Amino acid sequence: MEWITKKNVLIAGLGLMGGSYARALKRLGFHVMALDRDEEAVSYALRERIISEGAAGENDELVRKADAVILALYPGIVPQWVQEHQHLFQPGIMMTDVTGVKRQIVYKVQEILRKDVEFIAAHPMAGRELSGVQHSDDRIFRDANYIIVPTLQNTAKGIEWCGMLGKLLGCGKITVLSPEEHDDMIAFVSQLTHCIAVSLMTCSDNTHLSDYTGDSFRDLTRIARINDGMWSELFMMNREPLLAQMDTFLKELTEFRKMLAEGDVEGMREKMRISTQRRAAFNKPNQ
Amino acid sequence: MEWITKKNVLIAGLGLMGGSYARALKRLGFHVMALDRDEEAVSYALRERIISEGAAGENDELVRKADAVILALYPGIVPQWVQEHQHLFQPGIMMTDVTGVKRQIVYKVQEILRKDVEFIAAHPMAGRELSGVQHSDDRIFRDANYIIVPTLQNTAKGIEWCGMLGKLLGCGKITVLSPEEHDDMIAFVSQLTHCIAVSLMTCSDNTHLSDYTGDSFRDLTRIARINDGMWSELFMMNREPLLAQMDTFLKELTEFRKMLAEGDVEGMREKMRISTQRRAAFNKPNQ
Repeated sequence: MEWITKKNVLIAGLGLMGGSYARALKRLGFHVMALDRDEEAVSYALRERIISEGAAGENDELVRKADAVILALYPGIVPQWVQEHQHLFQPGIMMTDVTGVKRQIVYKVQEILRKDVEFIAAHPMAGRELSGVQHSDDRIFRDANYIIVPTLQNTAKGIEWCGMLGKLLGCGKITVLSPEEHDDMIAFVSQLTHCIAVSLMTCSDNTHLSDYTGDSFRDLTRIARINDGMWSELFMMNREPLLAQMDTFLKELTEFRKMLAEGDVEGMREKMRISTQRRAAFNKPNQ
Repeated sequence: MEWITKKNVLIAGLGLMGGSYARALKRLGFHVMALDRDEEAVSYALRERIISEGAAGENDELVRKADAVILALYPGIVPQWVQEHQHLFQPGIMMTDVTGVKRQIVYKVQEILRKDVEFIAAHPMAGRELSGVQHSDDRIFRDANYIIVPTLQNTAKGIEWCGMLGKLLGCGKITVLSPEEHDDMIAFVSQLTHCIAVSLMTCSDNTHLSDYTGDSFRDLTRIARINDGMWSELFMMNREPLLAQMDTFLKELTEFRKMLAEGDVEGMREKMRISTQRRAAFNKPNQ
């Protein structure tokens, strides 16, 4: 396992995800280095021993030492970061990312990347509704789904390395999807649900209702606390699949509304029975 | 505290909620009696010592002994149950319910009820996505909101008694709403959210996605496992408020879709900022 002997991991971007990767990998004994524009984030991570070494802004030395690079940046700046730093990379290093959209990232990075370095995309389906390294927590990976997103440019070794990283983080099920499959899936299970949660909170001023709600409303809107900068980028970079999923959902909810308006009780009950049956497949193994 | 000396509590309807009330009250030392049409439910509850006494079908003796009655029936049969059993009630007993809609229940029950008995409606905002006494659990009340729903027919004593019951169950915040306020609120925080969860599951066959989802999708669709008989009754009995809430939400999500389609990033970010700010009010005290 070549990976294990490669000790220096560089994390570019020290937010919630970068910090959570750092905690997990440092605990396993890796020499974890980090770069972030925000001085506060880096000094916090050093003080809390989340990373071994770090620098705010640029630091060529850290990039040169890296045996592996994890891109935990906002989606829009991923290709640019690679462009600006790849002349410092050691030959043969492995790179991955944590980005929530793939089509608009993976092909671009692989196109511009030096041919002696491999970029294999990944998406750990884990997170929190809070952002920043201060809220990072490597327990978010426990039992989480982890998706490897290779293209034809990737090698079997790269895919294996990426899956190993997911296992080391503590993720549960490791699967493989193409960038297109990933983005269609994510438009439905993640992006549409965030749009719904946001719209539930913005459709009327409902804060006075907090004394009356049950857990169902809390669960449904937990993700309505959202990093507006990052999520608007993710939505824009996956616009067509997300629009398609929104249309499918809007049509379905409108149909349910029509059943209610017309008193079609049997129609509503049939929808609920299908829903109940399908939802059973989504519980975690221990639920 | 007159309540404490009134020892015999009759629960009509031994499902998830009836069973959870029974567990909580029996633990506190009350003599808990139950009636249910389902022999299996009653014998399970007796075997598991969830209740002290019970009968499947009718049993006049149990109703006669009751110092307090809790109606934990499907919404549609609440008035009928009262009509058929009130000749057996002792004078001066207290009655309450757990029903998820109020306008169509409370006035009807109070209209037909004997004048020497008080019915004070309540709605504990607690539940589970599973039904039946076998899944009852009195921990669902812990920190839950509990809503007393009085009309002009109710007395101060009745309202006090009802609030005391909520406290005994272990509920957190006890509040008071009119039937109309309750139903408008519930259309938004509970019924609309259930419609959304169901529509997310039925809008396409997505069960193959279970290997890829994160917690946000699981949380949003937890309530998509739904008792179709009960919830279709609840929706039909609160049709107008629910239709109005569905329209408000559909309009808002359509507006968000338009922003995305037009690339209005600042518009989306503003929605997300409002959403984030509002959602903070809904966390439980310890979150």
